[in-house]
Amino acid sequence: MEHYLDNSATTRVSRSVAEKVTELMCENYGNPSSLHSLGYRAETELESSRETIAEALGVKSEEIYFTSGGTEANNLAVFGTAQWLKKRGNKIVTTAIEHSSVYEAVRHLEELGFDVTYIKPDSSGHISTEQFEDAIDDKTILVSVMAVNNEVGAILPVDKLKQIIKSKNSPALLHCDCVQAFGKIPLRLAKTGVDLASVSGHKIHAPKGVGAIYVRKGLNIKPRQYGGEQEKKLRPGTEPLPLIAGFAQAVSDFDLSRNYKKVSGLNTYIIERLKAIDEITINSPPDALPYIVNFSVNGIRSETMLHFLAEKEIYVSSGSACAKGKPSRVLGAMTADRDTADSALRVSFCAENTTQDIDALTDAIVEAQQKLAKR
Amino acid sequence: MEHYLDNSATTRVSRSVAEKVTELMCENYGNPSSLHSLGYRAETELESSRETIAEALGVKSEEIYFTSGGTEANNLAVFGTAQWLKKRGNKIVTTAIEHSSVYEAVRHLEELGFDVTYIKPDSSGHISTEQFEDAIDDKTILVSVMAVNNEVGAILPVDKLKQIIKSKNSPALLHCDCVQAFGKIPLRLAKTGVDLASVSGHKIHAPKGVGAIYVRKGLNIKPRQYGGEQEKKLRPGTEPLPLIAGFAQAVSDFDLSRNYKKVSGLNTYIIERLKAIDEITINSPPDALPYIVNFSVNGIRSETMLHFLAEKEIYVSSGSACAKGKPSRVLGAMTADRDTADSALRVSFCAENTTQDIDALTDAIVEAQQKLAKR
Repeated sequence: MEHYLDNSATTRVSRSVAEKVTELMCENYGNPSSLHSLGYRAETELESSRETIAEALGVKSEEIYFTSGGTEANNLAVFGTAQWLKKRGNKIVTTAIEHSSVYEAVRHLEELGFDVTYIKPDSSGHISTEQFEDAIDDKTILVSVMAVNNEVGAILPVDKLKQIIKSKNSPALLHCDCVQAFGKIPLRLAKTGVDLASVSGHKIHAPKGVGAIYVRKGLNIKPRQYGGEQEKKLRPGTEPLPLIAGFAQAVSDFDLSRNYKKVSGLNTYIIERLKAIDEITINSPPDALPYIVNFSVNGIRSETMLHFLAEKEIYVSSGSACAKGKPSRVLGAMTADRDTADSALRVSFCAENTTQDIDALTDAIVEAQQKLAKR
Repeated sequence: MEHYLDNSATTRVSRSVAEKVTELMCENYGNPSSLHSLGYRAETELESSRETIAEALGVKSEEIYFTSGGTEANNLAVFGTAQWLKKRGNKIVTTAIEHSSVYEAVRHLEELGFDVTYIKPDSSGHISTEQFEDAIDDKTILVSVMAVNNEVGAILPVDKLKQIIKSKNSPALLHCDCVQAFGKIPLRLAKTGVDLASVSGHKIHAPKGVGAIYVRKGLNIKPRQYGGEQEKKLRPGTEPLPLIAGFAQAVSDFDLSRNYKKVSGLNTYIIERLKAIDEITINSPPDALPYIVNFSVNGIRSETMLHFLAEKEIYVSSGSACAKGKPSRVLGAMTADRDTADSALRVSFCAENTTQDIDALTDAIVEAQQKLAKR
């Protein structure tokens, strides 16, 4: 029996989503830009999908632009803002624990001469608003902060940031990477004062290859891609309608509060079970998103443990999948303890997980400690 | 009964491809970058898909990078080359009939100070190699020419260009947009001396949202996207494995020479039928790719005719879907006759089309001429 506990890396596409994708691939297969009725039917589906995503984010339909995923959305937010506002200032404020698609994009801007502040978390993964007060000024053009960290589940104080930006007379846009938060906590982006946000399909049982960016109406961030007239020229290229409709189906399917309750129960259970095992350090902050639990099994390297678990069809990760096993920058920012980082594991839940999955995992960890420790 | 004759806009996903996509969405759903065995299984599928695409293009597997489609591949080729070679020169040579994802990208570079030559076709859509001889020099860093034009089917002299580039002592990379050629004519890119090439899935019965770029080994074109370690960092972001495996399935499925023969027959048949109708001008060159037939029904505007045909479930286009009905830049470059451009229709075949589809179309055109002309 398979125990898939790596849902922050990617998820299994649900049956209803897969059916929707197939319908759009094989029946309603027109190009949304085609002028005939098959194209019109496709366009109608495209626009209704856009409405579904917009509603779930608490924004207007016309403020949603589809992308190929979270990485493209994050890149578009970062580079599109820099390109638009570079005459207003050259400062960017972000955190040291962003996903690589924000972090590496901002690092590239740094090479091009931008002045970037990377706000560091404390050892529990918390980031204080005071640090933002100190960093943001009237030359800051972008503040990019994730809603939920992908490796430890820390929840960042995004809802406080618009006020700070205003109080500093800063022209900065507030970008929020919501990839790990979408579908897990309620997001009302317009109300929170977020200007730009990124979401991805494949973290919530939709297919890989689709995401979206929210761009508040009136903003004029610059495209990264040039071509046809699609997505109001902010993101040209034939829209991948099967994926987009699948994404919307996944969003329609989720029952946020029921799932949250269920996963909170799983979180309480796993923390109890982990605390009962010797030599385990919990790395996630106590008030983290319950969907993500990061912990270290002291003395056993992550990769060794991953393989031991995988042989039992228990799938977890050592950090971000995108890093392909490189040492975690996020844990590095949180703790000076190299051993803790080297032995870190990330469990990430979906609502379909069960306490049996957790039992299988914790039993296997105890077995691994007996068999692998001291090697 | 539906008559879909708009296959250059997009195609219906074939059953075998849809099944492959579903398998990768619901069963082998791991993230190819995950370190556990589910990730490894996904990575194996990813690499075998890469081999399939590489083989079909006559290049090495390690020279293929997956993208979200043709537009992204074309943009990466154009901007990636400009970024890499800008110190060697600032000249770009392309044609006036490229797809908008090359044309608009190059226009953007022109705004940034690059010197771009747009080679014009003659009235039949032909582009002569002499014009390239005149345009390319030792400051030219990129020559971007499509293999087959998407609106009229003209075949461009790509196989002559590497020799010209060499003879001019030019550092230029040769980029070929192969979106309309892939799966329709044999492509041996390495042999032809092409350095960069773009292909797309959804023109050949694979899903929308996936394409690839071929980058000859040793070239160091710069990425447009920053993030994780995927695709050797040239194109970060979780690979959309269901789409990629579907793309490879479509490529494995196609029987290039059988399809070509079948479609050549359809082409001969439609040309005969069209020539038997009054007031029709064939815009495609006589030696065009048989998959695309562009013609004008004099006196009836394209959009009027499109809607008339669509009511009979006959689907053609007025030009490129990506232009959403704007006047055709390609026909504009070929002919000064505005009426011809305003009444142009594009029929684009796949191997599943039949002479019945053509009969339905030509009968409907005759009916339209009786009912709509003089309005």
